[in-house]
Amino acid sequence: MTIFDEIESTVQSYARSFPCVFHKAKGEYLYDEQGNNYLDFLAGAGTLNYGHNNDIFKQPLIDYINEDGITHGLDMHTRAKAAFLESFKEKILDPRKLDMVVQFTGPTGTNAVEAALKLARKVKDRDNIISFTNGFHGVTLGALSTTGNSHHRGASGVTMGGNSRMPFDGYMGDGIDTTQYLDKVLSDPSSGVDKPAAVIVETVQGEGGINVASMQWLKALETVCRRHDVLLIVDDIQAGCGRTGTFFSFEPAGIQPDMVTLSKSISGYGVPFALLLLRPELDQWKPAEHNGTFRGNNMAFVTGKVAIDHYWSNDGFEQEIRRKGDIIGQRLEHLATTYGEGNFTAKGRGMFRGISCVTGELAGKITRRAFEKGLIIETSGADNEIIKCLCPLTISETALNHGLDILEESMQEICSKTEQIPEGKEYFEYDIAS
Amino acid sequence: MTIFDEIESTVQSYARSFPCVFHKAKGEYLYDEQGNNYLDFLAGAGTLNYGHNNDIFKQPLIDYINEDGITHGLDMHTRAKAAFLESFKEKILDPRKLDMVVQFTGPTGTNAVEAALKLARKVKDRDNIISFTNGFHGVTLGALSTTGNSHHRGASGVTMGGNSRMPFDGYMGDGIDTTQYLDKVLSDPSSGVDKPAAVIVETVQGEGGINVASMQWLKALETVCRRHDVLLIVDDIQAGCGRTGTFFSFEPAGIQPDMVTLSKSISGYGVPFALLLLRPELDQWKPAEHNGTFRGNNMAFVTGKVAIDHYWSNDGFEQEIRRKGDIIGQRLEHLATTYGEGNFTAKGRGMFRGISCVTGELAGKITRRAFEKGLIIETSGADNEIIKCLCPLTISETALNHGLDILEESMQEICSKTEQIPEGKEYFEYDIAS
Amino acid sequence: MTIFDEIESTVQSYARSFPCVFHKAKGEYLYDEQGNNYLDFLAGAGTLNYGHNNDIFKQPLIDYINEDGITHGLDMHTRAKAAFLESFKEKILDPRKLDMVVQFTGPTGTNAVEAALKLARKVKDRDNIISFTNGFHGVTLGALSTTGNSHHRGASGVTMGGNSRMPFDGYMGDGIDTTQYLDKVLSDPSSGVDKPAAVIVETVQGEGGINVASMQWLKALETVCRRHDVLLIVDDIQAGCGRTGTFFSFEPAGIQPDMVTLSKSISGYGVPFALLLLRPELDQWKPAEHNGTFRGNNMAFVTGKVAIDHYWSNDGFEQEIRRKGDIIGQRLEHLATTYGEGNFTAKGRGMFRGISCVTGELAGKITRRAFEKGLIIETSGADNEIIKCLCPLTISETALNHGLDILEESMQEICSKTEQIPEGKEYFEYDIAS
Amino acid sequence: MTIFDEIESTVQSYARSFPCVFHKAKGEYLYDEQGNNYLDFLAGAGTLNYGHNNDIFKQPLIDYINEDGITHGLDMHTRAKAAFLESFKEKILDPRKLDMVVQFTGPTGTNAVEAALKLARKVKDRDNIISFTNGFHGVTLGALSTTGNSHHRGASGVTMGGNSRMPFDGYMGDGIDTTQYLDKVLSDPSSGVDKPAAVIVETVQGEGGINVASMQWLKALETVCRRHDVLLIVDDIQAGCGRTGTFFSFEPAGIQPDMVTLSKSISGYGVPFALLLLRPELDQWKPAEHNGTFRGNNMAFVTGKVAIDHYWSNDGFEQEIRRKGDIIGQRLEHLATTYGEGNFTAKGRGMFRGISCVTGELAGKITRRAFEKGLIIETSGADNEIIKCLCPLTISETALNHGLDILEESMQEICSKTEQIPEGKEYFEYDIAS
Repeated sequence: MTIFDEIESTVQSYARSFPCVFHKAKGEYLYDEQGNNYLDFLAGAGTLNYGHNNDIFKQPLIDYINEDGITHGLDMHTRAKAAFLESFKEKILDPRKLDMVVQFTGPTGTNAVEAALKLARKVKDRDNIISFTNGFHGVTLGALSTTGNSHHRGASGVTMGGNSRMPFDGYMGDGIDTTQYLDKVLSDPSSGVDKPAAVIVETVQGEGGINVASMQWLKALETVCRRHDVLLIVDDIQAGCGRTGTFFSFEPAGIQPDMVTLSKSISGYGVPFALLLLRPELDQWKPAEHNGTFRGNNMAFVTGKVAIDHYWSNDGFEQEIRRKGDIIGQRLEHLATTYGEGNFTAKGRGMFRGISCVTGELAGKITRRAFEKGLIIETSGADNEIIKCLCPLTISETALNHGLDILEESMQEICSKTEQIPEGKEYFEYDIAS
Repeated sequence: MTIFDEIESTVQSYARSFPCVFHKAKGEYLYDEQGNNYLDFLAGAGTLNYGHNNDIFKQPLIDYINEDGITHGLDMHTRAKAAFLESFKEKILDPRKLDMVVQFTGPTGTNAVEAALKLARKVKDRDNIISFTNGFHGVTLGALSTTGNSHHRGASGVTMGGNSRMPFDGYMGDGIDTTQYLDKVLSDPSSGVDKPAAVIVETVQGEGGINVASMQWLKALETVCRRHDVLLIVDDIQAGCGRTGTFFSFEPAGIQPDMVTLSKSISGYGVPFALLLLRPELDQWKPAEHNGTFRGNNMAFVTGKVAIDHYWSNDGFEQEIRRKGDIIGQRLEHLATTYGEGNFTAKGRGMFRGISCVTGELAGKITRRAFEKGLIIETSGADNEIIKCLCPLTISETALNHGLDILEESMQEICSKTEQIPEGKEYFEYDIAS
Repeated sequence: MTIFDEIESTVQSYARSFPCVFHKAKGEYLYDEQGNNYLDFLAGAGTLNYGHNNDIFKQPLIDYINEDGITHGLDMHTRAKAAFLESFKEKILDPRKLDMVVQFTGPTGTNAVEAALKLARKVKDRDNIISFTNGFHGVTLGALSTTGNSHHRGASGVTMGGNSRMPFDGYMGDGIDTTQYLDKVLSDPSSGVDKPAAVIVETVQGEGGINVASMQWLKALETVCRRHDVLLIVDDIQAGCGRTGTFFSFEPAGIQPDMVTLSKSISGYGVPFALLLLRPELDQWKPAEHNGTFRGNNMAFVTGKVAIDHYWSNDGFEQEIRRKGDIIGQRLEHLATTYGEGNFTAKGRGMFRGISCVTGELAGKITRRAFEKGLIIETSGADNEIIKCLCPLTISETALNHGLDILEESMQEICSKTEQIPEGKEYFEYDIAS
Repeated sequence: MTIFDEIESTVQSYARSFPCVFHKAKGEYLYDEQGNNYLDFLAGAGTLNYGHNNDIFKQPLIDYINEDGITHGLDMHTRAKAAFLESFKEKILDPRKLDMVVQFTGPTGTNAVEAALKLARKVKDRDNIISFTNGFHGVTLGALSTTGNSHHRGASGVTMGGNSRMPFDGYMGDGIDTTQYLDKVLSDPSSGVDKPAAVIVETVQGEGGINVASMQWLKALETVCRRHDVLLIVDDIQAGCGRTGTFFSFEPAGIQPDMVTLSKSISGYGVPFALLLLRPELDQWKPAEHNGTFRGNNMAFVTGKVAIDHYWSNDGFEQEIRRKGDIIGQRLEHLATTYGEGNFTAKGRGMFRGISCVTGELAGKITRRAFEKGLIIETSGADNEIIKCLCPLTISETALNHGLDILEESMQEICSKTEQIPEGKEYFEYDIAS
């Protein structure tokens, strides 16, 4: 019996899908204790956009530790924080004409979401928050109330108030613009959907199944929010930091959110870090009103600054992401066509991609087979029916193609054994005419 | 205008009390950009029990980074995690006869509290949680509902249900055992205090004002919980990891909590880390039911193991803490007697100490003066009336005495200018006879 | 200054629209202190389906009082209660093949709704309740959480949890079956709409604006509820007791709700009374678990029995309602066509009818003019834009036509002065294409 | 099988304790279908302070019905309402120097409580309400959150937020003034008890077990409320209308509540009625913000006016209540001494009295025996251990003594069979010293 079996809680999840003891990692590869390597198409669920232990960050981090730079300083000012903020302002905010201030929350995405929801409620003096079907924003109680997954929601143990659910883009089938429904309930004083402080949205729903909001829908969402004096919070924790091809995932939509949450890859090196961006006029916090011991992780300031300086000083990295994204997209389209009997669907944008295998059972068989072949890849979606391709943005094309080859082989092997590919569910499973 | 003024949110707090840009730190000292040193009696609010950038941890951490050990692995098994768990089991749990499993939550104290509350509610199928006056357990929504401070509570923006408040030890004055009141409301089916899933308690309330629960009271609390089939959660985030003189703060009470939260100093080096201990029969989590990107920070596994191996393999460190704790205690008693006109009170145990200066105004003047003299020290309590001495446990006796000297000088200077020391409030401010 | 101005709360509403001191009433007429008569197209908001002080009930009630029949008996068994139950079973439940038990709640509609919601949550052990846009179910806190009107909701003062809102039939425009959306969110474990204990629905939304659910939609709603093991509660407080042409409003849909709330006209004579019908297997109440001082109003048992015996022993009354309903319907269609420039709409079914005048401003002008002409008629809907024709079901055809004449005159006068009738809002006010 | 067994819900409670079918009632007697009479020491749980079908009210009520006075008028002005308000102002409010306005809520006590809580939250813009251990304020969701009984609370099915519980007078044993604890938590910004909009209190807790608040405690409670700008709501639904010897139960304390709820006996004749009194400056309702179909029951206006005119025009009735109250009090003291082996306790004031028999089992045996002897009397308290004497205030002394004789005989018979009277519980059941 391993020490994990002995005393680690059963709440573990990835450890079940990938039952190895890992030891080292580099770039797009993980290595187990026996020295076997695994190609990583999971990338820390979006935390390792720049790969594992990327040398660009490594030496600056070691130097900082070596020279006894501040490791933990609560929210005090440090040179490392100043340097991060300067780069962030100069290379991220200013070029995008985003006039926003930065709040360093506790170093987890869910904490940044909690801060955003609190601040929105405080500023607008309303308790309702609108979130979307299949959204995921974290599992601490405030964030959880906006998360869609019943597996997570069911664990709350209390009635979660102060939230309303709206259909995400495409949820009601083609041709229905769900922002119009939102607009109607907000226009109607008798709709029963209380006027919200804010709407929180992911531009691409990762845990929800790689559901992509169209740019037109995001633009319409912003318009509805403005029209009703409702704040627009973009949760860019998974989709941000370049994953979709631009630093912020919402850039192509041309919108200006009121708040943006960032975490996962913002530190660059996989160390815990999170922040909330907010328009200056919303910065109505009183000192320490939202606090926490680890807000502002100084090691993350160091590596986070390197990430910005190295990858985001010009548009080269964006172009690289788009190129690789296209490769993945085309390949997934090919897989969907070739193996899914017309029932599989390629989804996503940039390097935030996936393929729907209709059922979680089928998707799970494929990812398990892929793991046997050395590929770490997970599923998401309501039924875990989506195979989620989330490789490091810095992956070599060779490795990328190799991973996709493994995925194809696995799919081919599993699908050829499957008598029939399940039919894709129609939007409306239930037909009242019958 | 500094970059902090330009784009960092006004939510900053410590940065206001200690308006420097810090650059380096070592042991019990912080250094600003100009090279000035500051003696640290704040210790990352209890995160730096082993001091800043302690060399014992530093080289192992650099080695781990250098050899490309796993930095981020979600909750996958890693060699670093195994090594931490083994040391934790062998040197912490087993010697104390604590049969508990370990859950790695998101790396913040509030996340460990959220996990504990959820699990308690789930296991017991009840929604109420009892917490105490002046308690502090974090500011994400679930944890916040158990936190006492109105400054933090007021920011929630929603009605927080599922919690009841009880008086902490001593809150109703001498001679009233508040666990008897708890016992009565739990025995009385018409009390209106819904049967709780759990009671959450700090053995020493840090943010609440260095309020120490007696061992007898903690023992009685455990008895009441057992009697009514209510789980007992000890939040040892600030008081644990040696702060009070034993690894867990509740050891001298001889109690066996059902769950224990740890964070702050558990990583040893100030990097984000948190965990929840729970009795095995409570480990009813389904996989990923409570999750998060940064749970199980591998760098923290490395440094956390070193902390345990180095400081907790024998009782030498405990003796050292007690010896220094006695020094602080005696000195604070002296200060209370000498400068407070009988109105000041020394509080705390181990190296978790403070002195009540009756009003936040007076305490603030003293700590500001101390900062001018190079001492970083903060206040806590409902009115910030408690000066909180929270130096690294590893502080040298010379530095410790120096810091206490600065505190004494500051107190002397301020109190001699103050015409009259405000009178300590009686328990009952209001006398119905009058 | 009248005594009303002196000491009655400003919360009064109808008293503002109809500023008289009324003294007597008979059938479809009210009389003020000066002896002026007013034709009543409000009928106690649906409480006076059998008119004011209908002689059929009057003598039996006086006899009961005269012979000292039990007036107040808490929930004890009385002869009057037995007689009511027997008639209700024999003439209402049995002929409709409804196998249901009767709970006498506090004598207000909102209390019956509170009982239904509690019981649903208890039986299903789920906290969520689904209600619909523009629904009205009462203003005590539990019922209020299901009510749509923001004027009422805003008065709650707390976060109301445990409810989700769905679009009513027609809310999303023609051609969209909103039960399919409900079906999808209930089928999708990641929809974020927690599995509900029950759905509560009005077949015709009175306060919400005379919105009629189609029989097909109600049938589909029942199917979705069954499919997902969700209870179906029909709130028939306003639409029941014959208002739509059958005793229960849902009869033509051929559905079998799990619970039905009745109040308003169930007593026949306008005295307070309410009850909840529930399928026997749902009757899992413990004694007194839901209680109240006035549950089971014995005077209401007396008059309620008379109502059933007199009006519901055969189908004559139903035919009468339909005949008059058709008269009203045709007349309202005529008004819509004649005076609304194509923007007015006739709505409703049976004798539960109204006409949308697009804006509350216009509708209010018309009803105020009508009142000057001796007609008591109110508005409803989100903007009070619907003129609501709710005359006693027993109204004479002469009086009915007279009332409709007054309405037409008023409309003619107001509309001829109005330069332009406002355009009816399209379903989607907001067009993202623009 | 009776019709009640067939189709009345199992939620029935009194019908179980008194398994007869009642038919008529007069004064202090109920009569079943067989013509047996029962002496009524329950009085509709306080609704029949003036007895059953009191002739003083009967003819005016019949006259009103006969002349077709308004039965149901929503909240419109009627002559009957004016007459009630005038009497109420002249004979109840003015002589007691209470400057209050009247809100007619739905005709149930719980509805008046819902209105009070809403208005308090609205006016103060705070969501918390403080209520007391063992309090009972109704079972609709808003009122229920302030009710103490777990049997009722458990049925809510949702997390009830926005309420905090405080110990009632005497709850923590002799010598502890629980208003001082309230004062402390309200003074302490870190107490975790959110600043409330209001405190709601019964001066004598009926359902909670005839717990009498001392006048000194009520006065202190008012002082604490004023000091912290918190509204004081007296729920006088059961204790008001003369039950304790004065019209309002709080008169002897010399306090001026901000709001007062009345129901039960306010109509005089047992017909449903409820109202809320509020200080004029709190009357910030918008029209219809709290509404309901049956608010302002006109029959109740008629009988309620008679009650005031007849019983409250001078102090004769008060003297009568006190005289009879003393008789009951002395007799209960005698019973406690004689039959309880020192463990029984007489409780209450005025004609709101009871005797604690230590356990519900024993009290239930006694009341069942009494019922066999023709006395209707119920129990209350957390364990139903209190026999509650709640006879009509108008009872003849002969009948009063007869009822007390029956109670004594029953007690004697049961107690003589009981080997040992259970010992009264000490305040603290649990002794931490052991």
